[in-house]
Amino acid sequence: MNKIITLTTDFGLSDEYAGVMKGVILARAPAATIVDLCHAVPRQDIVKAALLIKSAYAFFPKGTIHLVVVDPGVGSERRLILLLADGHMFLAPDNGVLSQLLDTDTVTVAYEIQCKHYFLSPVSRTFHGRDILAPIAAHLAAGLDPAETGPLIHLGTLQRFAVAEPHIDAGQGKISGKIISRDHFGNLQTNIEEKSLKALRSKTDRRIQVTIKERVISGIQDSYEAAAPGNLIAIINSRGFLEIAVNQGDAGAFLGAGPGDTVVLKMVRAQ
Amino acid sequence: MNKIITLTTDFGLSDEYAGVMKGVILARAPAATIVDLCHAVPRQDIVKAALLIKSAYAFFPKGTIHLVVVDPGVGSERRLILLLADGHMFLAPDNGVLSQLLDTDTVTVAYEIQCKHYFLSPVSRTFHGRDILAPIAAHLAAGLDPAETGPLIHLGTLQRFAVAEPHIDAGQGKISGKIISRDHFGNLQTNIEEKSLKALRSKTDRRIQVTIKERVISGIQDSYEAAAPGNLIAIINSRGFLEIAVNQGDAGAFLGAGPGDTVVLKMVRAQ
Amino acid sequence: MNKIITLTTDFGLSDEYAGVMKGVILARAPAATIVDLCHAVPRQDIVKAALLIKSAYAFFPKGTIHLVVVDPGVGSERRLILLLADGHMFLAPDNGVLSQLLDTDTVTVAYEIQCKHYFLSPVSRTFHGRDILAPIAAHLAAGLDPAETGPLIHLGTLQRFAVAEPHIDAGQGKISGKIISRDHFGNLQTNIEEKSLKALRSKTDRRIQVTIKERVISGIQDSYEAAAPGNLIAIINSRGFLEIAVNQGDAGAFLGAGPGDTVVLKMVRAQ
Repeated sequence: MNKIITLTTDFGLSDEYAGVMKGVILARAPAATIVDLCHAVPRQDIVKAALLIKSAYAFFPKGTIHLVVVDPGVGSERRLILLLADGHMFLAPDNGVLSQLLDTDTVTVAYEIQCKHYFLSPVSRTFHGRDILAPIAAHLAAGLDPAETGPLIHLGTLQRFAVAEPHIDAGQGKISGKIISRDHFGNLQTNIEEKSLKALRSKTDRRIQVTIKERVISGIQDSYEAAAPGNLIAIINSRGFLEIAVNQGDAGAFLGAGPGDTVVLKMVRAQ
Repeated sequence: MNKIITLTTDFGLSDEYAGVMKGVILARAPAATIVDLCHAVPRQDIVKAALLIKSAYAFFPKGTIHLVVVDPGVGSERRLILLLADGHMFLAPDNGVLSQLLDTDTVTVAYEIQCKHYFLSPVSRTFHGRDILAPIAAHLAAGLDPAETGPLIHLGTLQRFAVAEPHIDAGQGKISGKIISRDHFGNLQTNIEEKSLKALRSKTDRRIQVTIKERVISGIQDSYEAAAPGNLIAIINSRGFLEIAVNQGDAGAFLGAGPGDTVVLKMVRAQ
Repeated sequence: MNKIITLTTDFGLSDEYAGVMKGVILARAPAATIVDLCHAVPRQDIVKAALLIKSAYAFFPKGTIHLVVVDPGVGSERRLILLLADGHMFLAPDNGVLSQLLDTDTVTVAYEIQCKHYFLSPVSRTFHGRDILAPIAAHLAAGLDPAETGPLIHLGTLQRFAVAEPHIDAGQGKISGKIISRDHFGNLQTNIEEKSLKALRSKTDRRIQVTIKERVISGIQDSYEAAAPGNLIAIINSRGFLEIAVNQGDAGAFLGAGPGDTVVLKMVRAQ
């Protein structure tokens, strides 16, 4: 069987860190297919990594093993965990990096990784991704029963953090949200999901108006090219959220906007 | 069979975009070998991507499937195409990104991708690389007949752009060309192919002189080390074109030169 | 058999260079598993590449083939070599990039690569990684006998460079070393190995004091979190060397320090 193992880290690509994790995996699971999901998570940015793995995992087949190594607490008492959710396996430190997966009803079980006979020996003080998580991933890929990785964890004890939710006022026809990420293109993703927009769409003689940084954008479009090059646009992005973009441009730079900035949607009379 | 699928995009590596395309592919073609050709094409730079895929594809075995996703028109009416050329398959938007492949006599056929039953559902508005091209690549790797991807396209209707050609004056012994790319090392590639130099090489008592940004380089050398470290050199690069380089240095920075700048070759009396 | 081939280069990721090497390999060894160890070695930085491959190779299984292409002398008379060491194979230019492997007693043999019938044809003047090393790696993965790559080389003739050794004064309880690398996190690795510290640890009423850039760090800790966020710490890193770090910060930026700077350890009376 040809199990897939994905890697999400804040290691960057200028050292051998991601590469040696692959060596450790392939030495134990030669048939595994390893996929770099992202190694450019900003250093120690648990929130960014949590959002990324949530956006990405479901495009892989069930049974995929996802390693998420953003681990500022390496060497301290923080736990390392194996989480089973939605038919996938997730290996990570228990620091909240998997917390966006916990609020779905698909989480079945979590284990604290304690099966030391599978760890590299000695375990270093600073790189448990290589010394613990990589060999466990390999053994899981090769057929290890998840229940053998360690004791069950009560899910309520897992570290988690909340992402800001938008404020939806259906009566007033208004949604107030936040930018939660800026991608490589400068596109600004809000925390407003497509389904939230239904509340605003009931009246046919009105249209949606989006306001960010005192700029007003009219309507939600179906392609970037609905705006002229260099112009602002609102669109539903590939993660299913409202996004502010500039056609062939960089909305983050154009607006001087980024995570934390406010975005307001309201219904106005169509003209 | 172990088909190869290459990826060329402007996605960068800071998001999950390239990774989720791999998930989509591997979910449908578990035995495919995926190769990152380049994810650092400058955003929306169709010309750069077109030159890159032309330089690269032939080093892969026949039958390789190349995805080229530089797609500023995503969500608009631009077509998505499958091009068969020189025994390889190319999947891309019809925006000119494959146009450097069209002027060879190896193009056999192109199809407009319309086989919607293979697309992800729903198709997002902003990421057809993931939702359309990746699953089609996977199905092609798994044996789908190209003719089943959609209707034939008349090749003359494909978008294309021309790259500037050098001006060759064999009588005067002079070639006037342009820089067309600058690589990671700062090496400056011209649009002057090695074979063009034959016109200049007929007289044995003369040698080639290269002029760029008012600097004169004498002769075309066989290794960077033919110049002292830090000095300019002209050489035929690994893509078969004349290149201006600095031994152990960055010619682009040294000269303040880049794409679009003029390079002139002429024959002068050997001294 | 599913041989692993690792790639370590200074090519960066903005061109097709690493990708086409993979195409050349896969065209000749379709079952090979290719791992990017690092493509971000600073341009022409042989020392950095030499340290990186030494830190990384042993995490891969025996029999792995490691390509190291940092090759400022490409096209000149420098040799290309195959080195067998510690059960692994290394392909590189003979410019010192493998010299950190030569001082172990595990090196068995080296060959000068001359088996021209395996090279790409023609061989370019500027990219022997693609035209010579990649096809040789593929043929080795597919079973080529190393002895068929070319004539034996006397190990004493290989290019090598020395890395600065720390000065250890056990009588005075003092070690004077240097920073040798700075990683993606800004962590500063010294040339002081963990085993060197034994000389300093004999007296129980004393503790180790680390001085760098006139800053004093007390003791060597077991996790980054032993210091408050933003504070300096000394720790043994994942390569087995003393490292200066900042918890959740960038020690290189914090101290304005990098390779070449001095680090002094001494024993002081515990308070």
